Amino acid sequence: MESTIVNDEGKKITTKAYGASGSFIGGKTLEKMEIERNLPKSDEVLIEILFCGICHSDIHQVNNDWNNTIYPCVPGHEIIGKIIQTGSGVHNYALHDIVGVGCMIDSCQHCKSCEAGEEQYCLSLVGPTMTYNGYFKADGSGFNTFGGFSSHIVVKENFLVSIPSELEISSAAPIVCAGVTTYSPLKHWGVKAGDTVGIIGIGGLGHMAVMIAKAMGATVTAITTSEDKRDAAMQLGADYVLLSDDAADMTAKECTFDFLLCTIPTSFDINEYINLLSPRGTIITVGLLGPYETATNNMDVAKYGRSIAGSLIGGIAETQEVLAFCATHQILPHVEIIKIQDVNQAFDHIKNQDIRFRYVIDMKSIQND
Amino acid sequence: MESTIVNDEGKKITTKAYGASGSFIGGKTLEKMEIERNLPKSDEVLIEILFCGICHSDIHQVNNDWNNTIYPCVPGHEIIGKIIQTGSGVHNYALHDIVGVGCMIDSCQHCKSCEAGEEQYCLSLVGPTMTYNGYFKADGSGFNTFGGFSSHIVVKENFLVSIPSELEISSAAPIVCAGVTTYSPLKHWGVKAGDTVGIIGIGGLGHMAVMIAKAMGATVTAITTSEDKRDAAMQLGADYVLLSDDAADMTAKECTFDFLLCTIPTSFDINEYINLLSPRGTIITVGLLGPYETATNNMDVAKYGRSIAGSLIGGIAETQEVLAFCATHQILPHVEIIKIQDVNQAFDHIKNQDIRFRYVIDMKSIQND
Repeated sequence: MESTIVNDEGKKITTKAYGASGSFIGGKTLEKMEIERNLPKSDEVLIEILFCGICHSDIHQVNNDWNNTIYPCVPGHEIIGKIIQTGSGVHNYALHDIVGVGCMIDSCQHCKSCEAGEEQYCLSLVGPTMTYNGYFKADGSGFNTFGGFSSHIVVKENFLVSIPSELEISSAAPIVCAGVTTYSPLKHWGVKAGDTVGIIGIGGLGHMAVMIAKAMGATVTAITTSEDKRDAAMQLGADYVLLSDDAADMTAKECTFDFLLCTIPTSFDINEYINLLSPRGTIITVGLLGPYETATNNMDVAKYGRSIAGSLIGGIAETQEVLAFCATHQILPHVEIIKIQDVNQAFDHIKNQDIRFRYVIDMKSIQND
Repeated sequence: MESTIVNDEGKKITTKAYGASGSFIGGKTLEKMEIERNLPKSDEVLIEILFCGICHSDIHQVNNDWNNTIYPCVPGHEIIGKIIQTGSGVHNYALHDIVGVGCMIDSCQHCKSCEAGEEQYCLSLVGPTMTYNGYFKADGSGFNTFGGFSSHIVVKENFLVSIPSELEISSAAPIVCAGVTTYSPLKHWGVKAGDTVGIIGIGGLGHMAVMIAKAMGATVTAITTSEDKRDAAMQLGADYVLLSDDAADMTAKECTFDFLLCTIPTSFDINEYINLLSPRGTIITVGLLGPYETATNNMDVAKYGRSIAGSLIGGIAETQEVLAFCATHQILPHVEIIKIQDVNQAFDHIKNQDIRFRYVIDMKSIQND
C-alpha cells in the first residue's frame, strides 16, 4: 500500500479494525471487522497506525453512554503512526513521518474558534469532526468516522501533529488526548511557577496533569479517594497527597488552591471541592461530560470570587505544543502495552480501575488476525 | 454633636434607628428604636447619614433568610453622609466631607485578599466586618454592627469612599453596593468595548449593570422574563432585550454572549443560560447567595470551554473607582426617594417587584420620629 505522492481521490481501501458492530446492543465487547476508508484526497495522508491509546471516552462511546453512538463504532483517538501515502497538495508532512492524530480530524476552519486555533470549540452547526463517531461532511456526503483501533487511517494534514523524536513512540500516544486535555486548561487559566495546584482523580488524565503541572513549576497536590494511590502520585512528582474522604484534612486545606483540575469521569459533588479554592481560584472539570451530582452552592463560589469551568481536549496547535512541552520536560505517559486481541479485557480493567495509568495498543498486533 | 478633631475613645452615643427587634420572629416589619454606637476612635469618623439605599440583602438579613441574623438587626449598606467628627489620626478625610459607606466597615488588612485591595474576600477567620450584622472585633470585644437605617454611623477612614461632586447625592447611594457589585465582575473578567454582554434580571443590580456595561463600550442585551421591562431596559441604554421565556429566541442567541451577568436574587436554573455563552464565555452570578435550582450540566460548560463564576460586592478602592466611573459617564441609579417611616411598605414593594429600580431613604426623615 506504501507509495509516494498520489491522487487517489474517490478510491477506497479496506482496512482491519476492532469495533462494536451494527447489531451491538448495550454491549461490552469489540470484535474484529473490516472497514472501508477513502484513500487520501489532495490535502490528506494515509497513515499506518503503530500505537493507539485507550481513553475512557472509547468505552463511553462504545457503550452509547452519551446516546449518540453510530454503529459500527471503531474507537481510538490517541493515535501514533507512520505516513505511507500523501495527497498531492500536502506540504508540511512527508512519507515516513511519524505523526499523531488526536480527537479531531476536521473542523470548519473559518469560525472565531477555529481562527483562534481552538478547533475543539468549532462553532459550525455540527462542531468539529471527531476522529470516531464523527459525522464527516466532505463533499456534502456525510458518513461516520472510524478511529484508531484499525490498521490505517486517512487524515487531513491540518489535523496531524508531528511527534518529536525525543519521545518514545510506544508511550507517547496518550499525549494527544490525555496530555492536551490537561495541558490546555492549565495553560489557558495561566498556571505558573509558584501556583498551588490540586489534581483531582489520579488516573489516565490525572497522572498526566500531575506531571505537566509540576513541570510548569506549580506546587502540586494529588487529590484522591485512594490511599493506595499515594506512592504512585508521589512518584509522578506530586508534592502532597490529599485524601478527599478525610474531612479534617479537607477542611484544613480550605482556601489554599489557586487552581483545581478535576479529572473524575463520572458524576460527582462539586461542592465538596469548591471550598478548597483560594479567593479568585478556579476549578475546572475535564472528565465529566454530563451533570454534576448536586446543584452548585453559589454562596461558596461568590464569597471568594471563584470560578467553575469546563474544558474539552485542546486545539491542534496546542496539541503540537504539549508534545514539545513533554519532549522538553521528559514527560511520558505511564503505559502498559497490549495487543488488540486483549482490548476487551483492557476495557474491563479500566472500568474496574485495575489499570494505572493508561493502556496503549501495539497496533502491529492487528496483522495477526 | 458636630465637632472638630476629638478623642472620644471609649465613649458612646445613642442614635435613632429602624431595625428588627430582638424579639422579632420570621417577621416583616422594622420598628423605630434607639441604638448605641461607640464614638470615633483615632482612625474613625462619625457620619451624619443623609441617604441610605434599600438593597434586597436588607430584606434577606431582616428575615433571617441566611440563618445568621443577630437581632436587633438594623440594615442599610448604601450609605451617603456627612462627616461631623473625626478621630485624631484621620488623615484622608475632613469635617463636612460627603462620604459613602458600602457593605463593609473593616477587614484584617493584611491577608492576601486585603493586600490585593479585595477586602470583600478577606481570608481572616471571620472575613470582612459587614456594615450590619457584622461581628465587630475591635478591642477584642465582639459586638453586632448596625447599618445605615440610622441617624449616624461610625466608620474607620480606610473603609470610607469619597463621593465625587458631580454625583447627585440623593441618588448616588446605591452605587456603593449595587454599582460596585456589578462593576467589579465586569471589570475583573475584562469586559471591553465591542464585547457582547447580557444582563440577566433588570432590577436594582441589573439596571446599574446595563448602564455600566454600556459605558464600558459593550453591546448590551437585557435578559428578562418581563415584557413590561422592555421599554425601561432600552431607556437605560440596552441595545437589545431578550425574553428568557421565549424558547425560540433563546435558541437563536446560543453561543453569542462573551459575558453574562446574572442578578437574579433567588434560586434559578443556571442551565437555561449556559448555552447563550460564546466559546470561552463566562457567566457570573452576583444575586444568588445559595444553591442553584439544578445541577450544572458540565457537558454544556466543557464543550465550549465556558466558565461559571460568582462575585461578591467589590473592594474599597474599586468602590471609589466605580464612583469615579459613574461621575465620568454620568451614570446615576434610578431611585425613588422615600421617608424612613415608609420603609416597611418599601420592603413589601421590593418583595412584590413593584419598584423600578431602587428605593433610597432620605434619612433626615428619621428626625421626625
